[in-house]
Amino acid sequence: MSIAPATERDVLVSEVGPRDGLQSISAIMPTEAKKAWISAAAAAGVAEIEVGSFVPARLLPQLADTAELVAHARGIPGLNVAVLVPNLKGAQAAIAAGAHKITIPLSVSETHSLRNVRRSHAQMLDEVRQIAALIHALPPGQRPHLEGGLSTAFGCTLEGVVPERRVLELAVALMEAGCDEVSLSDTTGYANPAQVRRLIKAVWSAVGRHQLTGIHLHNTRGQGLANVVAALDVGLTTLDSSLAGLGGCPFAPGASGNIVTEDLVFMLEAMGLRTGIDLDALFATRELLAAALPGEPLYGMTPLAGLPKGFAPATRKSDPA
Amino acid sequence: MSIAPATERDVLVSEVGPRDGLQSISAIMPTEAKKAWISAAAAAGVAEIEVGSFVPARLLPQLADTAELVAHARGIPGLNVAVLVPNLKGAQAAIAAGAHKITIPLSVSETHSLRNVRRSHAQMLDEVRQIAALIHALPPGQRPHLEGGLSTAFGCTLEGVVPERRVLELAVALMEAGCDEVSLSDTTGYANPAQVRRLIKAVWSAVGRHQLTGIHLHNTRGQGLANVVAALDVGLTTLDSSLAGLGGCPFAPGASGNIVTEDLVFMLEAMGLRTGIDLDALFATRELLAAALPGEPLYGMTPLAGLPKGFAPATRKSDPA
Repeated sequence: MSIAPATERDVLVSEVGPRDGLQSISAIMPTEAKKAWISAAAAAGVAEIEVGSFVPARLLPQLADTAELVAHARGIPGLNVAVLVPNLKGAQAAIAAGAHKITIPLSVSETHSLRNVRRSHAQMLDEVRQIAALIHALPPGQRPHLEGGLSTAFGCTLEGVVPERRVLELAVALMEAGCDEVSLSDTTGYANPAQVRRLIKAVWSAVGRHQLTGIHLHNTRGQGLANVVAALDVGLTTLDSSLAGLGGCPFAPGASGNIVTEDLVFMLEAMGLRTGIDLDALFATRELLAAALPGEPLYGMTPLAGLPKGFAPATRKSDPA
Repeated sequence: MSIAPATERDVLVSEVGPRDGLQSISAIMPTEAKKAWISAAAAAGVAEIEVGSFVPARLLPQLADTAELVAHARGIPGLNVAVLVPNLKGAQAAIAAGAHKITIPLSVSETHSLRNVRRSHAQMLDEVRQIAALIHALPPGQRPHLEGGLSTAFGCTLEGVVPERRVLELAVALMEAGCDEVSLSDTTGYANPAQVRRLIKAVWSAVGRHQLTGIHLHNTRGQGLANVVAALDVGLTTLDSSLAGLGGCPFAPGASGNIVTEDLVFMLEAMGLRTGIDLDALFATRELLAAALPGEPLYGMTPLAGLPKGFAPATRKSDPA
């Protein structure tokens, strides 16, 4: 199996484990194991992988090999290679490495932004403008897709409730600063399905429907897939998740951080939404992870419970089986 | 705090832990601990509790004290006292004990029915007819509510796919046999949100909207709350769940059987749906369970992660805060 064309998918599952999962654990996965993971995930049909983050290695030594992973991932036909960057310098490295998609997070909670990256909203938007200028100076065919990731969009552990008005203002500001798209991130696991529906619609009203297609949800309070149902209902089509929920939740044993790719793909396929991902191959990829990170807790229930007897994955809308 | 009147709730959370949770573990909880749990849950605002099952004690010694628990629970003002019964004999005991609600499960998969209770569909429906006759012979004010629980409604580990037509036929047959209501049960954790929506609507078309108000979902593959969102969307108002997801899932470590009351109530309240349940008091009830069942795995993420900073429970529709 390999990556299916976008026309054969209803939903894009964007695997963020190599970035968000690995940055959240103390173990450093060997580069060769990461490459094997990325290759196996792509072979299972995963069409987009966030392979790392261009942050200084002294801050996140777990992700120091991001450039090498981008190069590896670019060699996989059909794979969209995504990275996170915290600033202009990171974006320069991402462009040099050849990433297809660059996400720069902007925390809607300014307290969180100052605490996390020591930058105010104004400073972050300045950074985004410079990144956008850099990208637009490239020849059209070589420009990576620039996404502004609105983190803490559903609430902040420091500020508490985050006003929706603030999310909308920053969504507009990110688009004006030159992003191709914004995304919503439930960094803190605070989101609920009603809020997910409401906020997506509000952001669409503010920046346009095609300027928000994806959401990054956490499962800290067990609400991950419930929030996915809400996002799907409204019409989002890109969902971030992490194989085996890698990264976990430091303060809540048993609580995964990112939503679990295996449970997500099972849900989508069972609902009749095509992901292009083969579940058995995905479960096998999980074994790679277990072997490369001995002792690291892995989450997700479907691989353990097994697929339902008689389970059939989603089929083409034009060709119902 | 105590149980709020039904008019102050948007959703009825029906706690099934004392029955479905305790029947699934080998430890036998002392009767006094069960009473303390039931009292604490009711004090937290839980308005309906399935306190046990009238099955022979040699089959389920964990639930041998059900009659005593019904008597205890009936002493709690405002609490709806529910029990499960497998047959006429169980219903006689339930009526003698004074249960307010009696659920008799009927497995849509006849293979499962024969394996589980050694009875065919025809034999089970006969049993239901006799129970209904028994109830209708009582004075009007003393008649318990009779619910026919359609188990394996979303698929069966023995038969695999369960045809929706079969669910509808049996829903009609249960109503014709004298049930006041039917409910849907995802015994096997096979359900997905699209199927939940579809099946509820189909059952409504077959037996009427007021004849199906509740659903019993399992979290075996992590889909529990996602399926709740689907059920709420369509308009169901009664949701079964188990404190701390008690009962677990024997073959999938970390996979709870029943959906977790704590995570469910958090989701509902966060969505603005009033449950009448105080979350802090509910979390305290969990501690009772932990103390009474040492070593038994407990599930649920919200009690461990804590409520979001600035979290506000749902308020009255007529009085938005």
